[in-house]
Amino acid sequence: MQIDNAMAELGPIFAGRVSRAPAILAQHGQSETLAASGRPDAVVYPQTTEEVVRIAQICARNGVPMVGWGAGTSLEGHALAVRGGVTVDFTQMDAVLAVYPEDMLCVVQPGITRERLNEELRATGLFFPVDPGANATLGGMAMTRASGTTAVRYGTMRDNVLGLEVVLADGRVIRTGTSAPKTSAGYDLTALMVGSEGTLGLVTEVTLRLQGQPEAVSAAVCAFPTLSDAVDCVIATIQSGIPMARIEFLDTASVAACAAWAGMDLPAAPHLLVEFHGSPSGVQEQAERYGELAGEFGSSGFQWARAAEDRARLWRMRHQAFQAILASRPGATAMVTDVCVPISRLAEAVAETHEDIARGSIPGPILGHVGDGNFHSVLLIDPANPAEQAEAKALANRMAERALRLGGTITGEHGVGSGKIGLMEAEHGLAWDVMRQIKQALDPANLMNPGKMLRP
Amino acid sequence: MQIDNAMAELGPIFAGRVSRAPAILAQHGQSETLAASGRPDAVVYPQTTEEVVRIAQICARNGVPMVGWGAGTSLEGHALAVRGGVTVDFTQMDAVLAVYPEDMLCVVQPGITRERLNEELRATGLFFPVDPGANATLGGMAMTRASGTTAVRYGTMRDNVLGLEVVLADGRVIRTGTSAPKTSAGYDLTALMVGSEGTLGLVTEVTLRLQGQPEAVSAAVCAFPTLSDAVDCVIATIQSGIPMARIEFLDTASVAACAAWAGMDLPAAPHLLVEFHGSPSGVQEQAERYGELAGEFGSSGFQWARAAEDRARLWRMRHQAFQAILASRPGATAMVTDVCVPISRLAEAVAETHEDIARGSIPGPILGHVGDGNFHSVLLIDPANPAEQAEAKALANRMAERALRLGGTITGEHGVGSGKIGLMEAEHGLAWDVMRQIKQALDPANLMNPGKMLRP
Repeated sequence: MQIDNAMAELGPIFAGRVSRAPAILAQHGQSETLAASGRPDAVVYPQTTEEVVRIAQICARNGVPMVGWGAGTSLEGHALAVRGGVTVDFTQMDAVLAVYPEDMLCVVQPGITRERLNEELRATGLFFPVDPGANATLGGMAMTRASGTTAVRYGTMRDNVLGLEVVLADGRVIRTGTSAPKTSAGYDLTALMVGSEGTLGLVTEVTLRLQGQPEAVSAAVCAFPTLSDAVDCVIATIQSGIPMARIEFLDTASVAACAAWAGMDLPAAPHLLVEFHGSPSGVQEQAERYGELAGEFGSSGFQWARAAEDRARLWRMRHQAFQAILASRPGATAMVTDVCVPISRLAEAVAETHEDIARGSIPGPILGHVGDGNFHSVLLIDPANPAEQAEAKALANRMAERALRLGGTITGEHGVGSGKIGLMEAEHGLAWDVMRQIKQALDPANLMNPGKMLRP
Repeated sequence: MQIDNAMAELGPIFAGRVSRAPAILAQHGQSETLAASGRPDAVVYPQTTEEVVRIAQICARNGVPMVGWGAGTSLEGHALAVRGGVTVDFTQMDAVLAVYPEDMLCVVQPGITRERLNEELRATGLFFPVDPGANATLGGMAMTRASGTTAVRYGTMRDNVLGLEVVLADGRVIRTGTSAPKTSAGYDLTALMVGSEGTLGLVTEVTLRLQGQPEAVSAAVCAFPTLSDAVDCVIATIQSGIPMARIEFLDTASVAACAAWAGMDLPAAPHLLVEFHGSPSGVQEQAERYGELAGEFGSSGFQWARAAEDRARLWRMRHQAFQAILASRPGATAMVTDVCVPISRLAEAVAETHEDIARGSIPGPILGHVGDGNFHSVLLIDPANPAEQAEAKALANRMAERALRLGGTITGEHGVGSGKIGLMEAEHGLAWDVMRQIKQALDPANLMNPGKMLRP
């Protein structure tokens, strides 16, 4: 067996850091949402780039697939070993290698989580803004082109990764990008790698742009009479140019689930959660302008969160929305959808989705980072009921098709993984073939995270 | 001859829009700075994407190189047909195809110039912010990943191109990106194409992000006692987080040339030119904070340009700096260098460059978009003197090596073209091979702008 040959070579190098124990394999063979089978044949825990090179060389020599693993929070099965092989678990490569406060940059290993990075940065007065909710690793976030609640202000991983170190399928190590704020020296390999879902290589270092911690922060939550009022308020807010740091939508069902989970008192109505960053006077001006706009759309029950602990409580509620919604239907499994449309089409996209879900039989609360046209529904399925699974899949496909019809994309931030391969042709047409040509050029044996994103 | 066969096919399709006239070939065989030989065998003027497809198919069939042409303002010979072939001149594909004010997007053909786009947008209250100085075409700007004076606030073409239509070497047409603000659906082909210098395909449509015209704008110019004072003031300004819309540096020699050219009265000292965009109160606050900082670095002679015509005059002076500096040494040819370094290393990069030029025999005024670490020297060479040419080349190489040593890049915004191929290995190492692998995958016969950027 190829894997046995690879293990014979990996064993002596990674004594105590390579495993075929069933519990370890099972842990790396599951994800939060998909039932897809993706158990690796082995898991290895490198500590250095050189060790990742050794893994790549050994796997390449033996024709064994390689799949990167961070925190396992992917929602589309990115880190599942759908064709077996070796899962490269980066949890022992989790250091902050350097912080350059004057350039507002840092260099990290891929296994560090978002929350720990921000803890380590706290004393510098800087922070890393991209916040997908889950406490994902920076390597995983880079590879899925993650974004989340703050993308409306600070951008996605596309905008915040300045450079990478990548181990390619044949063991070559490349560095992309520089520490300068911009460059026009050749193809943008950084951008090609960000969002490539581990199909082109294993990331071993990430250079990140940082932001100054805002002088003042203010957050608020308020209710709206209808779903359209809330969404139309988002559109008006974005178009008015108010520099929102976050603007999040929760429909009535999401609010009910989140409020129950977090023990907060919120009326049964669609809500927006917003946050402003800036100077004290700037934040006040933004908050006032937003308050006026929200008033025009019938908002009520404004609760301001000016103290850090109140804001933390508010965003903890938002970040736990997935768990809260999941708990609202005991025993359910979730299928989390993810589409993104132009802001001008957001209202119809959300309304049509809401009506579509309402016509069916399964619950599907809607919520999202609506400031950049991105929203989700959490479809709650009885795992023992194949009809529900089929209904959810059909709903998710219609959401994606709707997004494409409105000029949007099948995934705003969750990525393709194995879950959305079937929708890629519709979004990209011939450009999907170009992606495969690039993949074949860099990984002709298809060993880097095979079975993901590209045409099978 | 391959070109004759291609012409026999192109002639009937492009009657009156394909030429082998010596004057036309000469016009497309020269650039503003390089003496490199790059005359095409023919020039064709397509009007539609379908016509570009026909050109690509015919050229591919006959093994004839294809080189895109916009406004011919490249400084590194990008649009020169160094291996002959057909120059595809996009000046007849210069329409604004659509403007989506609610989404702050527009779709343009590649041949439209930056200035005309902004004229056409004026009534919408929106503008396209990237401003490289030259009145380049949007296709050319996308292909060189251009930036310029406003990148410190609005980003480069990397940040402002949302999608592309591209005709590949084999005639396939692909569309990259969507109209949604973000996506994580597959490889970022938009970012791969932006900055690819026409080596992967011919761009036939560009989707651009637009910005709201700022409510208030204010600009100023002021002098500093020394070069270091001016550069240190830039670093302090950027690090203080003041959202500068532009912050431009001119050394004493540049100021003298520009002032003489524009008939403006400026003291013989290093200067910064700055601009602020925002609400009236925001602009005033920014201007005051900048004024205080500049004062700490000994600034004097502040001239404010609050009226639109005064600002226009100021930026016209800046935009004509190249011509002004060129005129300061009658009969000279220019070699324009372009490097970009981390902000923290800007002071030493500029100071070392200044000293290096001062030790030599040729004039080389320094100026740049220093807010993102990017600066240029315009080396003025007697074209009849090979020793000066060699000296300039050596100076330029040392600038690039210095930028790399300081963590920067060999080109911030001018691109590689044929001028900087020799420096790519030093910046990218093995990653340069990856660029070539991608090129070979998409253009195996090397017909798309051959002889540029990639390893010969």
